[in-house]
Amino acid sequence: MAKRSTSRTNSKNQTKRKRQTSASRRTTSATKRTATRAASVRSTKMIYYFGSAKTEGDSSLKSLLGGKGANLAQMTTIGLPVPPGFTITTETCAKYYERSRKMPTGLMEEVEKNICALERETKKKFGDASNPLLVSVRSGAAISMPGMMDTVLNLGINDQVAEGLAALTSNRRFAYDAYRRLINMFGDVVMGVDHEHFEAAFDDVKREHNAATDAEVPEEGLVELCNRYKAVYKSHVGKNFPQDPLKQLRYAIEAVFKSWNIPRAAKYRQINDIHGLCGTAVNIQSMAYGNMGDDSGTGVAFTRNPSTGKNEFFGEFLINAQGEDVVAGIRTPRPVSEMKKWNNKVYKQLLAIKTKLEKHYRDMQDIEFTIERGKLFMLQTRNGKRTGGAAVTIACDMAKERLIDRDTALLRVPANDLIQLLLPSFDPKAKEKADVLTTGLPASPGVAVGKPAFTAAEAVERAGAGESVLLVRKETSPEDIDGMHTAVGILTSTGGMTSHAAVVARGWGKCCVAGAGEIKIDPGKGEFHVAGRTFGRNDTIALDGATGEVMAGEVPTVEPELSADFRTLMGWADKRRTMKVRTNADTPADARRAREFGAQGIGLCRTEHMFFEGDRIAAMREMIMAEERSHREIALAKLLPYQREDFIGIFTAMDNLPVTIRLLDPPLHEFLPHEENVQREMASAMGAQFEAVRWRVSMLHEANPMLGHRGCRLAITYPEILVMQIRAIAEATIACLEDGVRAKPEIMIPLVGTTKEVTILRELAEQTLQTVRKEKGLSRKLNIPIGTMIEIPRAALTADKIADAADFFSFGTNDLTQLTFGYSRDDINTFLPDYLKQEILEKDPFQTLDQAGVGVLVEMGIEKGRSVKPDLKIGICGEHGGDPASIIFCHNAGMDYVSCSPFRVPIARLAAAQAAISE
Amino acid sequence: MAKRSTSRTNSKNQTKRKRQTSASRRTTSATKRTATRAASVRSTKMIYYFGSAKTEGDSSLKSLLGGKGANLAQMTTIGLPVPPGFTITTETCAKYYERSRKMPTGLMEEVEKNICALERETKKKFGDASNPLLVSVRSGAAISMPGMMDTVLNLGINDQVAEGLAALTSNRRFAYDAYRRLINMFGDVVMGVDHEHFEAAFDDVKREHNAATDAEVPEEGLVELCNRYKAVYKSHVGKNFPQDPLKQLRYAIEAVFKSWNIPRAAKYRQINDIHGLCGTAVNIQSMAYGNMGDDSGTGVAFTRNPSTGKNEFFGEFLINAQGEDVVAGIRTPRPVSEMKKWNNKVYKQLLAIKTKLEKHYRDMQDIEFTIERGKLFMLQTRNGKRTGGAAVTIACDMAKERLIDRDTALLRVPANDLIQLLLPSFDPKAKEKADVLTTGLPASPGVAVGKPAFTAAEAVERAGAGESVLLVRKETSPEDIDGMHTAVGILTSTGGMTSHAAVVARGWGKCCVAGAGEIKIDPGKGEFHVAGRTFGRNDTIALDGATGEVMAGEVPTVEPELSADFRTLMGWADKRRTMKVRTNADTPADARRAREFGAQGIGLCRTEHMFFEGDRIAAMREMIMAEERSHREIALAKLLPYQREDFIGIFTAMDNLPVTIRLLDPPLHEFLPHEENVQREMASAMGAQFEAVRWRVSMLHEANPMLGHRGCRLAITYPEILVMQIRAIAEATIACLEDGVRAKPEIMIPLVGTTKEVTILRELAEQTLQTVRKEKGLSRKLNIPIGTMIEIPRAALTADKIADAADFFSFGTNDLTQLTFGYSRDDINTFLPDYLKQEILEKDPFQTLDQAGVGVLVEMGIEKGRSVKPDLKIGICGEHGGDPASIIFCHNAGMDYVSCSPFRVPIARLAAAQAAISE
Repeated sequence: MAKRSTSRTNSKNQTKRKRQTSASRRTTSATKRTATRAASVRSTKMIYYFGSAKTEGDSSLKSLLGGKGANLAQMTTIGLPVPPGFTITTETCAKYYERSRKMPTGLMEEVEKNICALERETKKKFGDASNPLLVSVRSGAAISMPGMMDTVLNLGINDQVAEGLAALTSNRRFAYDAYRRLINMFGDVVMGVDHEHFEAAFDDVKREHNAATDAEVPEEGLVELCNRYKAVYKSHVGKNFPQDPLKQLRYAIEAVFKSWNIPRAAKYRQINDIHGLCGTAVNIQSMAYGNMGDDSGTGVAFTRNPSTGKNEFFGEFLINAQGEDVVAGIRTPRPVSEMKKWNNKVYKQLLAIKTKLEKHYRDMQDIEFTIERGKLFMLQTRNGKRTGGAAVTIACDMAKERLIDRDTALLRVPANDLIQLLLPSFDPKAKEKADVLTTGLPASPGVAVGKPAFTAAEAVERAGAGESVLLVRKETSPEDIDGMHTAVGILTSTGGMTSHAAVVARGWGKCCVAGAGEIKIDPGKGEFHVAGRTFGRNDTIALDGATGEVMAGEVPTVEPELSADFRTLMGWADKRRTMKVRTNADTPADARRAREFGAQGIGLCRTEHMFFEGDRIAAMREMIMAEERSHREIALAKLLPYQREDFIGIFTAMDNLPVTIRLLDPPLHEFLPHEENVQREMASAMGAQFEAVRWRVSMLHEANPMLGHRGCRLAITYPEILVMQIRAIAEATIACLEDGVRAKPEIMIPLVGTTKEVTILRELAEQTLQTVRKEKGLSRKLNIPIGTMIEIPRAALTADKIADAADFFSFGTNDLTQLTFGYSRDDINTFLPDYLKQEILEKDPFQTLDQAGVGVLVEMGIEKGRSVKPDLKIGICGEHGGDPASIIFCHNAGMDYVSCSPFRVPIARLAAAQAAISE
Repeated sequence: MAKRSTSRTNSKNQTKRKRQTSASRRTTSATKRTATRAASVRSTKMIYYFGSAKTEGDSSLKSLLGGKGANLAQMTTIGLPVPPGFTITTETCAKYYERSRKMPTGLMEEVEKNICALERETKKKFGDASNPLLVSVRSGAAISMPGMMDTVLNLGINDQVAEGLAALTSNRRFAYDAYRRLINMFGDVVMGVDHEHFEAAFDDVKREHNAATDAEVPEEGLVELCNRYKAVYKSHVGKNFPQDPLKQLRYAIEAVFKSWNIPRAAKYRQINDIHGLCGTAVNIQSMAYGNMGDDSGTGVAFTRNPSTGKNEFFGEFLINAQGEDVVAGIRTPRPVSEMKKWNNKVYKQLLAIKTKLEKHYRDMQDIEFTIERGKLFMLQTRNGKRTGGAAVTIACDMAKERLIDRDTALLRVPANDLIQLLLPSFDPKAKEKADVLTTGLPASPGVAVGKPAFTAAEAVERAGAGESVLLVRKETSPEDIDGMHTAVGILTSTGGMTSHAAVVARGWGKCCVAGAGEIKIDPGKGEFHVAGRTFGRNDTIALDGATGEVMAGEVPTVEPELSADFRTLMGWADKRRTMKVRTNADTPADARRAREFGAQGIGLCRTEHMFFEGDRIAAMREMIMAEERSHREIALAKLLPYQREDFIGIFTAMDNLPVTIRLLDPPLHEFLPHEENVQREMASAMGAQFEAVRWRVSMLHEANPMLGHRGCRLAITYPEILVMQIRAIAEATIACLEDGVRAKPEIMIPLVGTTKEVTILRELAEQTLQTVRKEKGLSRKLNIPIGTMIEIPRAALTADKIADAADFFSFGTNDLTQLTFGYSRDDINTFLPDYLKQEILEKDPFQTLDQAGVGVLVEMGIEKGRSVKPDLKIGICGEHGGDPASIIFCHNAGMDYVSCSPFRVPIARLAAAQAAISE
């Protein structure tokens, strides 16, 4: 212990020392989700081969080969059974866009060379009917974007190859099934023929053969289907389906390149904060078939449970199916544990591979595999998406298993995802009585209460109008991304734990119940049926993503129990971080909750909310209506006892921790009613003329209240308000001292733009503290620091002057962002969506601190402030104090603490630790 | 000529070279009205003597001795007849305040030593009844603050001395008149006894002696009056009037120190932008008496005419009077030219002194003198206040007389005062028919039309409510400063050309008619009587300060004729300045006027005003009401021809000069009506539903429109608006070319905060220019630069990025000031008065650029912009572009031009020259 604390002191000192210079340095650490840019010097090598002959890539080349390509190469290298293939680099995709969507020179020649290598290794030939090489063409960016970009399977089949394949596999049904899938996918993905036209042709064939399901269509039906598909293709594309496999390949590669910039992919990147990628890689891989009969199959699995984090092999498989069938959620698959009974050898082989992969990647893996006639092939591995709770548990477990060290464990948990652990769940008592309609798969934990929306567009529209909506769909597809994001929860009637809906929802920590098969959805009528009942757009539904329950009506929620793993991880974080974490809290209840979450003080206690309850607002209004100082003082005297009691409550909740109290900030008109009838009520309650009230309201009206008479400007013109507040603080502090509560108030002056505001108000505050001290007969001085918000650009620009008069700085980055950008938070939605869409802004600057603009002012403020007071205590109390990317910035800028809402305190603790580790 | 133009080119190059480094350098040049700070190392010498024995100071020590003290020393040195005395330094006054208003240690000992020196020189003794030394005690700061601080005359009289003085002068009446004046002034100024108590005692004595005027009171009445005054003094002070002359002196010195910080003095400094002074000096000088009989007199004069600048001796004198009687305007004095008849010897002596003083000071002087029994004494000289017109004429004349060089001549004219030459005067034709009530003295030129206010407080209140008021007073006093400042003109019924009202009004360039003796004012009733008529608070009166005429009703005004001297000076300024001067103009008429005033282009052509006239607003509203882009485009097509014609008009007025056009800036709701009845009218005119109009207005409502959906944000969301405007610019340019007009438009994108906004809109603008060019079959490219406003802090902070995409920068310092301070221009008046009063702000930051805050962003923007584009053209187009102090800042920051309203163009030309000279 002694040793540890010594080393911690050292690291603190180092941080202190660094601070002198760090403020001016731009922070460069990227957050987990922001990819490193492709190397600035581009390689000319366009293709990397993987196979037993040679493997040119490995998992370190993700930015060049994409995640999928890099991992296919890596799996090949460590000896896992991977169908051989090759990867066209992401830079080649970038070149495609640089050349205004023309295929880079020499690319197809390189592709052909690699096809030759593939032919040698597989001993098959591309387009050779007697022994055809078939390949898949899949996208794969450096950061996983599941289902967002395009894929074409079974490439290399033409009329002759189909016949040859039938002969070779002695399975004509399989051969034509593969062919019709190729024509369908190629037509849809590469040529933009709407899937429904193929669907219609299939329905015709099924009807003609009296087949209820796809599987019931006889062999000759599939042959016929291929002809119909080719006709559909020709009628929509205007040309015949290409019989030349190389032509198929060329078009498919280009289609994947194009899919990088289709709207749904762009939207996905925006929602998930993915920036700085140059394009997608293209993986061309020899096919393995899970649909060659009942000895074949396909599956997806996680090496640990992605919902709970439990160390158990977790996944699903389908017999006699192609991989896309599992992910798309069309058939409901079987749990992977049941595989033992079907093929124990393969199951054991998978378990061994799972262990090998975890040892190699030292992280939980999300794998795809196919069994072709009893032989296992690995088609993909990647770090698995997981819920916040699972991330915590996996990180702790892996650290305990010594797969990773504690720093790595801390970096593994996306700080924002902790919110999932801290959010409410349904009250168990209320749930006993809940009206459970059905139970689906617990696809993504959390709870959601809302009204059903039946299409993504409807969900977006109604959510935009302020409704809480649940997206209720048979299955979801990448087109639904927008609606899934705006819905509070997702309910699907088909699809499993690894379906699109489940994977995406877990990634976001959004509640999802999948595969609730008893639910029959009628999107046309806007209703669904379950248990003999019907629910429409106006019915409230509750989802429990942890149990899969779907309930009618509202269900009350309770606060979460924090897991042991959570506490362990937070403990590690606290040892590692150098910044303190405070909270923004205005009530004793919030203060207590934040303290339970680990807050080390209050960084922002707003005093204005205290004036709205009951009698207080009457006294406040009396103060505002008064025309003379003496009358204002009479009204303020009525507010004093309330304010004092508020502070006593908060000081008590925060015993021995600092409480930064911001003096009155909003413009006075916020305390007056704006509707005529309420003005009349107010007038009669006060015994005033209605006209006088209306006149005062109109006098206080401001064109731009954000830039008006508020903050310390109020205290300059109405010093008696400040005097009352300081008196309340002083009296509360003394009352606490007498009760043995160690009150540690700090007084914060808001909206400072000039030094003189601080010197004038500080003098007045100190006089008032002195007066109260003498009145109460306190012998020692009240040691209450007086500091300023830095939230006006001019305060940052003149921080060296202001620091002379201030004991501390707290950056109010909400207002600082408003003023630095000239954006009103209340009005930004008129143009923000366009700004995000056109990538004028990468993110909403009110959520994540704009480092290039606002950040420059923050750094300047810190540097100038510390230039005159090297030990000046500096923190942040805007919304950004709870945002991980912004917290990293604050750490690098040399702040002493961040302050955020109670629920974000654990996030801030973890993010602060991650910042210290990444430094 | 060739030589001159070469040297001019050189100086330009030097400026260009300097720019690379100058932006980061703080400008230090002070404007004329901002005094240099007292030397940082303080001298310990507290008193400077002046007299024939020794003279320790000179006119270079103004900051230490005050203007009056330094010039008394200087006049003594150059041999003028000055009553000897000594000056207590301004630093001693500062010490007094540092010691919390205690007299500095050792000061009175020093005073006594100097009194001894004075006794030796005058051969009189302080307090010696047989041969008494009497002194005056006067304030005198480094910058003249006429009448603002306190003065005590006749110090040294007590009961014995009064008797001795009577014997010595054989003039008992004179001796007791001096004594009663001392008791009155000492009681009033030093002890704060209200003047009216002495007034009442005087009235009693007059009544008792049946005297109508002061002069009719007999000798014994004055003796009695002294006793009554001593009783008044005792009853209010609680002590006897001090008989010890040294005690009198000590109290008087302290009273002068105190008067430095009385409210009216502080207010005067604020109004006149006087900052950085450490206190007032105190001048103790042996008395000279102008009231010793008809061979005595007193006067004030200017060495040239302060209204017109004409080189003529100009002033007034009173026979048998003390100096204060002239300045206070109690008796109407005689013109100084009449002195010849009274005492030609003294008159000739004065003329010789006038010439000597001008040769010495090389500036027009304002002098005070006293004739004691035929002997002339100089009591003061200082640079004379003058009107803008006089300043121009005097500067030109003195340069022609080779008293000063041209640079000095340029520096002599306060740039702001030029506005007086450019403002309208009454239309001579209308004046022929005007209802002239009376003619007073033409005390300060200019014209004013308003309604009478009878007290300063009333003037302030009514002007605050938006009324144009004339301050109508018998006489004005320093207490009236506030009311004089807010009134549009001043009318007094007594007092001459050098009365308080006249001097102050001329200093401000405010119209004043003084000494209009036919006017009888009744402040109690709120009316005045003249020519048998009565005028009250609701009657409009017109004043002509150049003729002294007072007229009933409105009189139309005409534009001024610019004088030859004005043109000469402007020519000198244009040769000297390196910055260009453009104008802010939205109409051809404004453009033409500005061009006449010397504008070298338009720096800001706002396009929004063009949408309000006639049919345009209907089309604009149609555009705003449209829900689809195609409908908006239809409405915009209707606006296009108007906009094109507007631009053709402006380009034609500005033929061959650049015209910077700002794209649409205000939020759309500014174009919609907000009152229900107008909304109904609009709906029916458009054939739309009223509800639809109301809904659209409510949708467009913003909490803070200044920070809302405006500027380039509009163009991002409604690109079709930008396209229409660019098309209008391109079509107008081509139409002009065809007509032989050399149109030089520049396109300016407003409210830029990010680089991407510029790149997106620039691309769209360039495409549009290209389209129009092709349509019109123009072979060569339209060479139209596209630049940005820098008016959002983030734009300045990221100017290196933005410069990449912009051809020029124009600093919009109005919005930049709003955002840097967080002040809404529309709402600032709620707290600005308090901020100025408490000196939180030295000046309104919307009038003069805040160099410490906003200026830092401007310098940063210039430095960053030029770091990527060294030749980036940079200007300013906020209100500050017409403010001299701000123009000096712009020059030092390295800007290429300033742009201001047409009337301020000459001011900017002169200020730019002054900046170049002072560099």
